[in-house]
Amino acid sequence: MRLVRYGETGAEKPGMMDGDTLRDLSGVIDDITGATLDDATLARLRDLDPASLPAVSGKPRLGPCVGAIGKFLCIGLNYSDHAAETGAEIPKHPILFFKANSAIVGANDTVMMPRGSTHTDWEVELGVVIGKTAKYVSKENALDHVAGYCVVNDVSERHFQTQLTGQWTKGKSCDTFGPTGPWLVTRDEVPDPQKLGMWLDVNGKRMQTGNTATMIFTVAEIIEHLSHLFTLHPGDVITTGTPPGVGMGMKPDPVYLKVGDVMTLGIDGLGEQRQEVGQDA
Amino acid sequence: MRLVRYGETGAEKPGMMDGDTLRDLSGVIDDITGATLDDATLARLRDLDPASLPAVSGKPRLGPCVGAIGKFLCIGLNYSDHAAETGAEIPKHPILFFKANSAIVGANDTVMMPRGSTHTDWEVELGVVIGKTAKYVSKENALDHVAGYCVVNDVSERHFQTQLTGQWTKGKSCDTFGPTGPWLVTRDEVPDPQKLGMWLDVNGKRMQTGNTATMIFTVAEIIEHLSHLFTLHPGDVITTGTPPGVGMGMKPDPVYLKVGDVMTLGIDGLGEQRQEVGQDA
Repeated sequence: MRLVRYGETGAEKPGMMDGDTLRDLSGVIDDITGATLDDATLARLRDLDPASLPAVSGKPRLGPCVGAIGKFLCIGLNYSDHAAETGAEIPKHPILFFKANSAIVGANDTVMMPRGSTHTDWEVELGVVIGKTAKYVSKENALDHVAGYCVVNDVSERHFQTQLTGQWTKGKSCDTFGPTGPWLVTRDEVPDPQKLGMWLDVNGKRMQTGNTATMIFTVAEIIEHLSHLFTLHPGDVITTGTPPGVGMGMKPDPVYLKVGDVMTLGIDGLGEQRQEVGQDA
Repeated sequence: MRLVRYGETGAEKPGMMDGDTLRDLSGVIDDITGATLDDATLARLRDLDPASLPAVSGKPRLGPCVGAIGKFLCIGLNYSDHAAETGAEIPKHPILFFKANSAIVGANDTVMMPRGSTHTDWEVELGVVIGKTAKYVSKENALDHVAGYCVVNDVSERHFQTQLTGQWTKGKSCDTFGPTGPWLVTRDEVPDPQKLGMWLDVNGKRMQTGNTATMIFTVAEIIEHLSHLFTLHPGDVITTGTPPGVGMGMKPDPVYLKVGDVMTLGIDGLGEQRQEVGQDA
């Protein structure tokens, strides 16, 4: 299933894609959040005949594909080829930082650079949506705790991230820096999360090409590690790092976003995002 | 006013302290969250005759004094005397990291060390509760965006924080590592947040003694800085760093918590916390 949330910011309704048709789920569930991502509810949705659900007309905005996200957990430097690109050592454990929940937006919402920002960069990433509480789980069972997967653009202000004194989270948490969606694709439709091609273009030029096969820590290993630090709750999202091709790593000089640029990005089977770039006055 | 949330975890009701009497506010507001921390609602609560509110009998558990916290923002190394204690340089900007929302508990709830933890430490801190949206505010107006203040124990696992590869958040986000309360004291009763004495005892022995006067970045400066990175929303909490006396800094050897220890801590006018220490099996 491809689950969506559609409508204006803060008033999104739940929906389901039926081919290219968006169908309304608000007669069945209130929203797509941790409260409705358990296996039983997903099985109930899977049993519906999509044709029995009202079709939504027009092209409504798509919101973040998960509402009321509890924790937005980000793994850094998790692709061996991206670590090589940035000259960083291969980490011994998954590098964790948080992105502020208030940064999360829909897949096609405008990304607004903060006032004065000159180092805003892109990162296509595989997002993992937790469906079942996970504490002290092993990697062998970890994927049972996943409701599904989605595309995340882990937009990053590199000056804020590296020059404003310690801890990356400053450059990751600006408003609109977390496009998430378009869809939550349930895990039954993603047989192997470690075999997904991914890409990102800026103004139609290919910048990132990667595959989750080159992750240093697999999705299952990340869930195992994090669940030994704290509880992962339904509705938490983990974004799992980015492959090579970020602006910071461009040769001979870094390349950063400017007003009017357009990012398009996607992951095999998980849909595509498109963001225009603006800037706070 | 001293606002509280009382009752079992996840089912807390709003209340108000009237001397030593806890009075129920659930006939007036649904909860104490970002939605009820605006100046107008706080003025309405202030106009109530506390004696007209039902007294709550017994000694119910106190939950976190703010519900549905959006962002739990932590400032590191923000006391000049604590920076000296740890041998760290004085930072040029406030050091920001996030504590997972899922770590937040009531002021007197048990603090559970994670499985295998041997380096769990304490940090008494001044918590600042945002009441009004703040984006690009100046320090001169910053405190207008504050609903009130509270005590936070920024419990920290130092091995997780420093030895599990980068970014402090791992050691700060364990379940139960964010006791918050007992009360939210509204800002009208805290005329100067930079003149508050604070202390923390372990098993009755004084470990931390400090005063917000030695903060490197004041509450107003922190709000200014953060609001230039992203929007601060009502219900966000900023915990503003800890004074000297953490276990990691003890001489000749660091001292860490063990099962059965009791932490007590407080800040002038903001009440006291008491946590027993347990450990996940």
